[in-house]
Amino acid sequence: MANKKIKVGIVGGTGYTGVELLRLLAVHPQVELAAITSRGEAGMPVADMFPSLRGYVDLVFTDPASANLGTCDVVFFATPHGVAMSQAKALLAAGVKVIDLAADFRLQDIAVFEKWYKLPHSCPDILKNAVYGIPELYRQQIKNAQVIGNPGCYPTTVILGLAPLLEQGLIDFSAPIVSDSKSGVSGAGRKAEIGTLFAEASDNLKAYGVAGHRHHPEIHAQLTQLADDKLDLIFVPHLIPMIRGMLSTIYVKLTPKGNSTDLQALYEKRYEQERFVDVLPAGSLPETRSVRGANNLRIALHKQADTGYLTLLVVQDNLVKGAAGQAVQNMNIMFGFDEAAGLEVVPLLP
Amino acid sequence: MANKKIKVGIVGGTGYTGVELLRLLAVHPQVELAAITSRGEAGMPVADMFPSLRGYVDLVFTDPASANLGTCDVVFFATPHGVAMSQAKALLAAGVKVIDLAADFRLQDIAVFEKWYKLPHSCPDILKNAVYGIPELYRQQIKNAQVIGNPGCYPTTVILGLAPLLEQGLIDFSAPIVSDSKSGVSGAGRKAEIGTLFAEASDNLKAYGVAGHRHHPEIHAQLTQLADDKLDLIFVPHLIPMIRGMLSTIYVKLTPKGNSTDLQALYEKRYEQERFVDVLPAGSLPETRSVRGANNLRIALHKQADTGYLTLLVVQDNLVKGAAGQAVQNMNIMFGFDEAAGLEVVPLLP
Amino acid sequence: MANKKIKVGIVGGTGYTGVELLRLLAVHPQVELAAITSRGEAGMPVADMFPSLRGYVDLVFTDPASANLGTCDVVFFATPHGVAMSQAKALLAAGVKVIDLAADFRLQDIAVFEKWYKLPHSCPDILKNAVYGIPELYRQQIKNAQVIGNPGCYPTTVILGLAPLLEQGLIDFSAPIVSDSKSGVSGAGRKAEIGTLFAEASDNLKAYGVAGHRHHPEIHAQLTQLADDKLDLIFVPHLIPMIRGMLSTIYVKLTPKGNSTDLQALYEKRYEQERFVDVLPAGSLPETRSVRGANNLRIALHKQADTGYLTLLVVQDNLVKGAAGQAVQNMNIMFGFDEAAGLEVVPLLP
Amino acid sequence: MANKKIKVGIVGGTGYTGVELLRLLAVHPQVELAAITSRGEAGMPVADMFPSLRGYVDLVFTDPASANLGTCDVVFFATPHGVAMSQAKALLAAGVKVIDLAADFRLQDIAVFEKWYKLPHSCPDILKNAVYGIPELYRQQIKNAQVIGNPGCYPTTVILGLAPLLEQGLIDFSAPIVSDSKSGVSGAGRKAEIGTLFAEASDNLKAYGVAGHRHHPEIHAQLTQLADDKLDLIFVPHLIPMIRGMLSTIYVKLTPKGNSTDLQALYEKRYEQERFVDVLPAGSLPETRSVRGANNLRIALHKQADTGYLTLLVVQDNLVKGAAGQAVQNMNIMFGFDEAAGLEVVPLLP
Repeated sequence: MANKKIKVGIVGGTGYTGVELLRLLAVHPQVELAAITSRGEAGMPVADMFPSLRGYVDLVFTDPASANLGTCDVVFFATPHGVAMSQAKALLAAGVKVIDLAADFRLQDIAVFEKWYKLPHSCPDILKNAVYGIPELYRQQIKNAQVIGNPGCYPTTVILGLAPLLEQGLIDFSAPIVSDSKSGVSGAGRKAEIGTLFAEASDNLKAYGVAGHRHHPEIHAQLTQLADDKLDLIFVPHLIPMIRGMLSTIYVKLTPKGNSTDLQALYEKRYEQERFVDVLPAGSLPETRSVRGANNLRIALHKQADTGYLTLLVVQDNLVKGAAGQAVQNMNIMFGFDEAAGLEVVPLLP
Repeated sequence: MANKKIKVGIVGGTGYTGVELLRLLAVHPQVELAAITSRGEAGMPVADMFPSLRGYVDLVFTDPASANLGTCDVVFFATPHGVAMSQAKALLAAGVKVIDLAADFRLQDIAVFEKWYKLPHSCPDILKNAVYGIPELYRQQIKNAQVIGNPGCYPTTVILGLAPLLEQGLIDFSAPIVSDSKSGVSGAGRKAEIGTLFAEASDNLKAYGVAGHRHHPEIHAQLTQLADDKLDLIFVPHLIPMIRGMLSTIYVKLTPKGNSTDLQALYEKRYEQERFVDVLPAGSLPETRSVRGANNLRIALHKQADTGYLTLLVVQDNLVKGAAGQAVQNMNIMFGFDEAAGLEVVPLLP
Repeated sequence: MANKKIKVGIVGGTGYTGVELLRLLAVHPQVELAAITSRGEAGMPVADMFPSLRGYVDLVFTDPASANLGTCDVVFFATPHGVAMSQAKALLAAGVKVIDLAADFRLQDIAVFEKWYKLPHSCPDILKNAVYGIPELYRQQIKNAQVIGNPGCYPTTVILGLAPLLEQGLIDFSAPIVSDSKSGVSGAGRKAEIGTLFAEASDNLKAYGVAGHRHHPEIHAQLTQLADDKLDLIFVPHLIPMIRGMLSTIYVKLTPKGNSTDLQALYEKRYEQERFVDVLPAGSLPETRSVRGANNLRIALHKQADTGYLTLLVVQDNLVKGAAGQAVQNMNIMFGFDEAAGLEVVPLLP
Repeated sequence: MANKKIKVGIVGGTGYTGVELLRLLAVHPQVELAAITSRGEAGMPVADMFPSLRGYVDLVFTDPASANLGTCDVVFFATPHGVAMSQAKALLAAGVKVIDLAADFRLQDIAVFEKWYKLPHSCPDILKNAVYGIPELYRQQIKNAQVIGNPGCYPTTVILGLAPLLEQGLIDFSAPIVSDSKSGVSGAGRKAEIGTLFAEASDNLKAYGVAGHRHHPEIHAQLTQLADDKLDLIFVPHLIPMIRGMLSTIYVKLTPKGNSTDLQALYEKRYEQERFVDVLPAGSLPETRSVRGANNLRIALHKQADTGYLTLLVVQDNLVKGAAGQAVQNMNIMFGFDEAAGLEVVPLLP
């Protein structure tokens, strides 16, 4: 029933993925926002915290204890890591689907999860049936999933950027895959920290997490699965003085077959049915603002003449295709809606 | 017929008001984008210039000569001053309505127009029947208008900010009205100029146009008409290192009656039926990002304790309520559509 | 002895005024940096916190208890309000001069201080002899002072902007003085707070403190003293998405004599001997970046044709002439150095 | 004679490298600014174009024809490519040394120069004796040079970043060297172009020049010379929404010997006598703002655990060590001054 509305709950709506979910869901034609919880802000109208939502969202933050999330059809977790797994069991028992925007259901290897997130995993059985929520790769599984581990922002760019090559076995793994990735500051979340103050992060640039970033194992696991082979990954994220936007510049060594393949055609064919993945014309230089506020991800391919290497440029809005937008896309699939419902937001440029 | 689509043309779509019209009209349920003209870029797909529109707008820029605008229901002019008045007559004769986002139809006093814009006015008769397009003040006239002079960005903030006081005669004109106004850099347009380069305008702030700005006579004329009295206006615009957004901080001396009136209540009542004017709770400090990308304008009132003065804070997105959004709002009224059609865009925050 | 070096201590060097003092003092020819204290960061090399100082400052943060500040010639307090007054007595007893960059010694009216800063003043006797550190007004008193209350950033712009008019009695106080002031985000300090995060403060603009800001009483007290008369002040600060820089746009009603005076000449004459106050040519529009990193303050005057009002544009770097630079200028005067010693830093543009 | 002042001329002072030379030279103790030329702006005081220089530079732009540059000791060319080579012969004949900040004297291979710059080289004989101006590599030659080809901004980071490895033969050239480089927008120069407008370049990120950038052959030539071997280079520059600052993230495959060498120690030793090259402690993440406005270049090394690759992070201010500062450093060496004279500018942070 395309016109039936589902009841949606959001746990932890005071961060950037929370407000972004609200922005998208507030005008989603098949969604009724039923509850949004925050331990710290219970009683405060959402629009007092996010004045952009005045006139669009009338909800008040409620205490998690009294939110009655069990009556929802689906609950999004826009929370710190570890929260979703503590509540998933009860929700599933009540017939509620779960979409976690944190990392609880992204990594199937529990040892890896526990090493990087310093948390014991409390529901390995649920994890086993959770689906990694990249629709362009796992649409069928998402359709039937009860629990979605919504991908990290960086992983979305690298995985979708490389999937066509990996599926066809065109990367030579004798060299590591290098992803030099860049993110706007909103990726650090809405947390009071000195390093992301305007006066610290503006007119400035730095790499971070070079010695190890939590998205490394996530990307590595997904690439390995797609490759069905062992591979090395060098992943260096950078903090860019912009609010939103993400660009991964990816360097891969092609196999001889990769070198002789028309990769532009391969990519265009692979993604031609995908509403949110846009393979740009040969020679393009995608800008992050071309997807600002929207669920689109754009890819450009550049052969590096004599070297046998390919450079990929992949852009997205880290808060949309990299987080809340992809989560809504997953929801649409889970409930049989038009996959683009609520996501026809034209990017904001300038 | 709410579902009938009208044919819309845009003249001069290569600037920021042009791309903004396209952003809004591309998903407007009752609009068919029929043509977009550009002398310089004829033949280029719009989405090549504005990659944000890939997947949303398939149009190609056409030469004005061959655009066949006479078959449109309405034509927007997102052009330099002087273009709309040169084409209005022919379009009107063909039964096409005209919405000019430049200044050709804003100033009823031709001498003032010619002084400030250094152009002779070529169609005073059309001007006489043109309507100044602020729906919250002139909705009835807009409904029946053939030609709309869409207001300047700064004027929209000052006029809507002061209208309730002026309508009630609560300002003491023995002191000038002071509008200290601030705009994001997109207000300067998409023109190759050194002063608005990133490396010049970023991390920087300045006033400009202090000796005289074209919006001064426009604001002055509108305020005078609303006041039905003579008044002095000091208007000082400032260039702010942000892409979009406008804040006017307005200082007015209240009459004794103004001082004893519950102004908060007055404003809330005056605008309670207005979808796009939001009177904030007493004590509020509106942020420009609270309306980023959206057609909303927000007002906050602050009594200056012992001085008898009132400070008004008025924010809008200069490209939306200050330009393209208000133009679409006018179009909706002219064609009997829901006034908010195509304008239910939730502001983008962060 | 122009070549003798003095020993300088800094209390609380982990904020922006602290690092700014270090930037200036590290290359001051007559200064030996003796100690910098921080309770929280004792043991950390200063250059680890502020990598810009690598190669220029070898000091390690020391605990206040062990810093032995009594051996210094002068101690700067770059601390929260209330710290300087708790330590001033002991330092003065040891013959150490004190320059407080916080508010402890700015307001001679203790009741006003206590109302705005919510602190009892612990040393009214010292306060009585403290000098308000604007060299261009109080150079003689500074020369002999033991304690300087270094002015707030906003007050410096408004006071120096209006001093020539006030000294000559050219402002008509029947209307309030309006200062619409704008500051870069560094003015909020180096504190972990959500409101000044990059993703919150960037591409955004707002007024704040409209209902009352601590610099209001400070400005009001100084203007009143210069005017030797009662006057009303409306002061509205705004947060601008730039790191540094401050612009006050000041609107004043002139007396008849003020209207007939050559104000440009008056200002040029008043400040012609001042190394750091620059009266711009008539018609100028000063930019904040024209003083980035430097101790200069620039003023432009604009008569508002028929209104009898004058608009002043005053720019400075809020961290330099608005804080640390002015403090060093005061130090130079107190010790008989060239007033510009260590302050010949050419502004950084672009 | 360390205290004798030399006469300095600047050709083409209206761009960013020009104003930056002026900023540094205005307070250089051994420099007398004799002339600055601009065809377009002859007669305009320099401080009218760059108000930051008010009070520091009294010069007026003069027409190149009347500038009498032959009386200078050294002339800097802050001009488009091709200008320096047209004037070098006459200046050298007059005994004037030449430092070109454009590309005329950077590439010894004339065919390569002509391919990338689309200009015939007009003085191959002068080029042959020109020295590539990286003091840390070619100090002796610079000392005796008459003509300096001042390096490009990107090349400075990559060459100094890799020199210690190349000198020791520690890079395995079976894989390409990848430099993913990022620059602030000032690198595009002070030219009226749409792509670098604030409203285009702000809150945005993109790669550019992927198909070929003029700094590629320059870097390649220098690396090849240092390696004395053939090598592949992938160089992808990115435009970052900040005014100044440059970061190259460089990925290299180490030889077995490289993998077993203490590279941190190697780098520290290699650069320990260098005033302007700073090898950061192991694990550091350099920020571009740590060198804002200063001539320092900072390097951090990160071994990529199991991959046999090394990641280097190299930051500089693109306008200082990447252009004008390095040019002044070269001048200091050519005239026997302290190499750091005029360059002891503490970086501006925040």
